[in-house]
Amino acid sequence: MVSAIITIGDELLIGQVIDTNSAWIAQQLNLIGVKVEERVSVADDKAAIENTITRLLKSVDYIFITGGLGPTKDDITKHTLCSYFEDELVMHQPTLENITRLFKLFGKDVNNINAQQAMLPSRAKIVANNNGTAAGMWFQKNGKSIISMPGVPFEMKGMMTEFILPEIQQLNNITIYHKTICTQGIGESWLAEKIADIESALPSYIKLAYLPAPGLVRLRLSCYNHTSDKELGEWVDKIVERVGVHVYGFNNDTLPYVVGKLLKEKSKTLAVAESCTGGYISHLITSIPGSSSYYKGGVVSYANEVKVNSLGVSANSIYAEGAVSKEVVEQMAIGVLKKMDSDYAIATSGVAGPDGGSIEKPVGLVWIAIASKEGIFSKDFKFGDNRERNIERAALTALSFLRKELIKK
Amino acid sequence: MVSAIITIGDELLIGQVIDTNSAWIAQQLNLIGVKVEERVSVADDKAAIENTITRLLKSVDYIFITGGLGPTKDDITKHTLCSYFEDELVMHQPTLENITRLFKLFGKDVNNINAQQAMLPSRAKIVANNNGTAAGMWFQKNGKSIISMPGVPFEMKGMMTEFILPEIQQLNNITIYHKTICTQGIGESWLAEKIADIESALPSYIKLAYLPAPGLVRLRLSCYNHTSDKELGEWVDKIVERVGVHVYGFNNDTLPYVVGKLLKEKSKTLAVAESCTGGYISHLITSIPGSSSYYKGGVVSYANEVKVNSLGVSANSIYAEGAVSKEVVEQMAIGVLKKMDSDYAIATSGVAGPDGGSIEKPVGLVWIAIASKEGIFSKDFKFGDNRERNIERAALTALSFLRKELIKK
Repeated sequence: MVSAIITIGDELLIGQVIDTNSAWIAQQLNLIGVKVEERVSVADDKAAIENTITRLLKSVDYIFITGGLGPTKDDITKHTLCSYFEDELVMHQPTLENITRLFKLFGKDVNNINAQQAMLPSRAKIVANNNGTAAGMWFQKNGKSIISMPGVPFEMKGMMTEFILPEIQQLNNITIYHKTICTQGIGESWLAEKIADIESALPSYIKLAYLPAPGLVRLRLSCYNHTSDKELGEWVDKIVERVGVHVYGFNNDTLPYVVGKLLKEKSKTLAVAESCTGGYISHLITSIPGSSSYYKGGVVSYANEVKVNSLGVSANSIYAEGAVSKEVVEQMAIGVLKKMDSDYAIATSGVAGPDGGSIEKPVGLVWIAIASKEGIFSKDFKFGDNRERNIERAALTALSFLRKELIKK
Repeated sequence: MVSAIITIGDELLIGQVIDTNSAWIAQQLNLIGVKVEERVSVADDKAAIENTITRLLKSVDYIFITGGLGPTKDDITKHTLCSYFEDELVMHQPTLENITRLFKLFGKDVNNINAQQAMLPSRAKIVANNNGTAAGMWFQKNGKSIISMPGVPFEMKGMMTEFILPEIQQLNNITIYHKTICTQGIGESWLAEKIADIESALPSYIKLAYLPAPGLVRLRLSCYNHTSDKELGEWVDKIVERVGVHVYGFNNDTLPYVVGKLLKEKSKTLAVAESCTGGYISHLITSIPGSSSYYKGGVVSYANEVKVNSLGVSANSIYAEGAVSKEVVEQMAIGVLKKMDSDYAIATSGVAGPDGGSIEKPVGLVWIAIASKEGIFSKDFKFGDNRERNIERAALTALSFLRKELIKK
């Protein structure tokens, strides 16, 4: 099974938008054993789109297309494909209903430009878009598939996950098992050294991939052409046992999800006091549906006076030790714990950068504290010099800390 | 002048790496008037590389290639290009010296594998790499240029900026001007209707593109083959005048940046009280370097008791009106304004979903309030049914509200 990905849009060719769709689609296809031979971006241009499809159809079984399905004039993908496959546009009632439903949600009526989005090629299989107004179109020609999706990532991902990937898997009788081990607190090369002997002993039909992300490393094991996932599970167990406490979950588990699950299971509550992470920890926690059952709230104490007035940090400690210090971060954690009457509290204080660093307290220095009714502990970390990364790594490290505390009991 | 970009590497086709090189190169080329016709990623595979070059040479003047120049076996770009152009590898003394210099920096000797990197095609123009060991190669064939660079972004960028772009710039006098208008608070199709007559009246050499993102729409105008950006500016002005207050900035401006700039200019401070947005507004604001000069802090009041104890919301109001109400969101805004002694305050309270909705207060309902020392106003919105998007849209809408308030005076 060989495929190609076409992303369409003038914005891709002037570099205004980074193409993240291709990488995501390629990942998903690889997971079900569909090889990606080429990724190509072309303009919103009829001839360019047609020529690229004609060329790729000579060598691939599937072409995945994103972009150019919006309601405006510069979006020409639908008309181009319709004429390419010598089809005609007809009103697709379920799509019109979906558009009407979405507009109703926003308390708005469907105008003529929006209704045109429900005019779709008569012979294409229409792929529902639960997250937007542009439907997907699945064309077939000589046993090959050409699948067109919107360029908005979460609309495209919804279609792929809910309809397209399961269908391709079923059509091609693909059996691949994957399991991903999620780790935090151990770098990629350390991890590789720690499990080197296990990796060498893997049979040829089980592959291990390292998937590093800022602050995390995930390990994906894939077992090809086997009828059961039992053997895969045994190898996963070996690695988990070796890596120990750094393993926080599996597959799509995220740290905020895992921490939330632990808090819920133990009927414990959490409050957060953030300085350098600026609300990002609270954002991660509240991204999880149902987090209101364990997350009480947080204080973002950016200004020192807010640390004093809203969290009860001693002004003397800030003066004597500085805001980025063991003393202050612990007072922040205890302050928010008491104030919000929670069972656990996280606090962060650091220098996110790019400015504000000194020789003693350089950019990237972050203090993290975890408080509970039984006590408090804190630790300093030295991350890098990139503001965005520092915020991300500090937040994940703090959540990982809390998780390790929660699994102790 | 027309060009294409080829990125080479197996990792691009399994989606392990997001291709940021193409977008950057495309941006730079557009700035000097070289149009990018296609971006394509292929595997570390001789036939795939050769076929792609042959095909692209039919229609473009320049091909930019990144990747596959490393010292290991799977990097085959150099050998492939050398044989494609019927050239032979010879020792390139300046490159060997550069490699030796770089190894010295790390206190290491040059081994044989590394020295091989100085073996380069005899007839290619060699492009120095000041940041790494792999040199660039500039081949010429029938007046067309094929330029091969390393895949490591900062090495490629160094070569492009220091040598390749200035050289191409000297040879070409075409100019393209771009200007992007950033809007919030008006949907793509409404925007299209609103400016339909302006769009129709655009001359053929000025193109308009809609770039929608969650909660935002950006409009990019591009003017081809003109010696001044005056005419482009006039069209931009027409659109800005028509779209009015929804235009929050230009080009790479973001709402948190624009709001921060306004606060800084006016020497005003901000505090934030968040319920349904769960810290995300504070996170957006503190993502901007230097935000500590205007952002005092925030309270994430997820639990009702936190609304009462940390923000001074009346328990009776919550009981009578519910937490998602005009009354409560206004009390939250006033509470945080007073508590943190700021000039402005934002507050949000809503049902992010997927649970917690009712017929009266469905998922997607969000109240937003803006308070200042002069008064308060609030408004309810009905977003969609996706939690992540509701948080994103509520946050951007709140920032947009504050911006509109700030530009009033």
